[in-house]
Amino acid sequence: MKAFVTGAAGFIGSHLADRLLALGHEVTGFDNFSTGLPAFLEEASKNERFRLVEADLLDFPELARAMAGAQYVFHLAANANVRFGPDHPRKDLEQNTIAASNVLEAMRVTGAKRIIFASTGSVYGEPHIFPTPEDAPFPVQTSLYAASKLAAEGLISAYCAAYEFQAWIFRFVSILGERYTHGHVFDFYKQLRAHPGRLEVLGDGHQRKSYLYVQDCINAILVAIDQASGPVSILNLGTDEYCEVNDSIRWIAESLELSPRISYSGGKRGWVGDSPFIFLDCRRMQLLGWKPEVTIRDGILRTLDFLRRNEWVLEKRC
Amino acid sequence: MKAFVTGAAGFIGSHLADRLLALGHEVTGFDNFSTGLPAFLEEASKNERFRLVEADLLDFPELARAMAGAQYVFHLAANANVRFGPDHPRKDLEQNTIAASNVLEAMRVTGAKRIIFASTGSVYGEPHIFPTPEDAPFPVQTSLYAASKLAAEGLISAYCAAYEFQAWIFRFVSILGERYTHGHVFDFYKQLRAHPGRLEVLGDGHQRKSYLYVQDCINAILVAIDQASGPVSILNLGTDEYCEVNDSIRWIAESLELSPRISYSGGKRGWVGDSPFIFLDCRRMQLLGWKPEVTIRDGILRTLDFLRRNEWVLEKRC
Repeated sequence: MKAFVTGAAGFIGSHLADRLLALGHEVTGFDNFSTGLPAFLEEASKNERFRLVEADLLDFPELARAMAGAQYVFHLAANANVRFGPDHPRKDLEQNTIAASNVLEAMRVTGAKRIIFASTGSVYGEPHIFPTPEDAPFPVQTSLYAASKLAAEGLISAYCAAYEFQAWIFRFVSILGERYTHGHVFDFYKQLRAHPGRLEVLGDGHQRKSYLYVQDCINAILVAIDQASGPVSILNLGTDEYCEVNDSIRWIAESLELSPRISYSGGKRGWVGDSPFIFLDCRRMQLLGWKPEVTIRDGILRTLDFLRRNEWVLEKRC
Repeated sequence: MKAFVTGAAGFIGSHLADRLLALGHEVTGFDNFSTGLPAFLEEASKNERFRLVEADLLDFPELARAMAGAQYVFHLAANANVRFGPDHPRKDLEQNTIAASNVLEAMRVTGAKRIIFASTGSVYGEPHIFPTPEDAPFPVQTSLYAASKLAAEGLISAYCAAYEFQAWIFRFVSILGERYTHGHVFDFYKQLRAHPGRLEVLGDGHQRKSYLYVQDCINAILVAIDQASGPVSILNLGTDEYCEVNDSIRWIAESLELSPRISYSGGKRGWVGDSPFIFLDCRRMQLLGWKPEVTIRDGILRTLDFLRRNEWVLEKRC
């Protein structure tokens, strides 16, 4: 296939690019390097079937030029920082919703008809059904991030109806693994490296979360493209388990052989829009023949291990 | 109250402005007159508690200036033309989603905290539950219009979480009545005036639709503001009945004393994104103490009567 990957220098995007190349596909990576890192594309860049375009999704002419000839568009680029949404309320709209509109319009112009989209389990807001299925009760949005992703989902579905596009929309839990350079593992490791004796935790530590290992995530995407043939496939992506933030802290501290004093900011939520319990029903995806291979604990430890081996990334993020 | 009404020269906006003025409130109307008509504000303009600002919601500085001092923001302005969405896919995004973001940002800047938003039953896509409740299964979007409205709903809810706004989001069926200058009654009357012997109908005529009379709609909005005190109140707004397009044709033809030959374009849907069956569960709104007073048939006939008495509006719309 001729694949076009937005956010190609990002966490999931770079792993996806590597995998698509390994499978023999042609890949055009598109990234503005606002958070993506050139080092993540080091391997890909050695491959003659890989091409990198450094540009912004809000630059429509450049986007449409870069996309020409693509058959499958993997739209992974996003402002993925849920927590700081209220500090800059336009950012999610611009980088997630308007950028998605540009991707869709570029597809319409270039004739690409298949889109794979990284949405989020956060679109369920604070659900009342666990594990939460894709057809859960129509939720109320609780974060600007999720609202902007839901808006993109809606646009994509509407394009499928209007222009006969085909879409695979994945509602992810948090994805973990090598090259993951934000989120709680990153935050905790960075804190413990600066002061091994204490750890500050947002919320009460009892937030229950699901995490999925990045290679399991990419396996799922590839299975779904192959097996789900409807015009709009909406698929939860997570594991059959969840953990408490406190579990994760224990695993990380054990692995680092530390016993930090933990102070909690308190409250059920770590920040506005943080969902105290994320646990998705992934049977739809599993019925297509996929299952995750890495546990939450191992995903966390692999992420930690990556950070220990690549401390330079700690300097790249605040 | 000090009210700010976007789309004040439009169908629902102008009726709302009239009502708020009649109740003794101060009203600032905001309209770019892209589809609004000055004649609809003739009465309001005579009232010293009314002020009109002619500007575009995409002009943020002008919007924020106009909104200063407002307590309640009634955001009714929209591109309301579902049918032609695929002809200009950016229009819904700009006029419905980005415009809503501007309204919310202007509220943040000016300190207004309460927003009333005209959403649509179309956000349910093609539901499987009738009448459709607000917490229906998470739907898939089928039109750019509904996708853009859903995006605005999400933004509004996220602002309530992030900045302690209070919102009343109404998911309307089609609203009918005096000053309604598009939709099927308008289309049929215009056709029959040009050629009384024949009528062209989109779809198979069996589409089942709900309609609500505009004064019933405004009654509901005012009851909800008074009675629903949660941070985000999402409320369906429709009648306990529905009709077929063919019923409406019969009522219109009888009223005009015509017997046109009817030709159907065929198919269950009149256009891409047309929902073959719209029937909303409005118990949430009714539990607040509201009920509609005008039947669908009477709403259609009042709309028709308005058009017969105001044929000049036929020239204003294609």
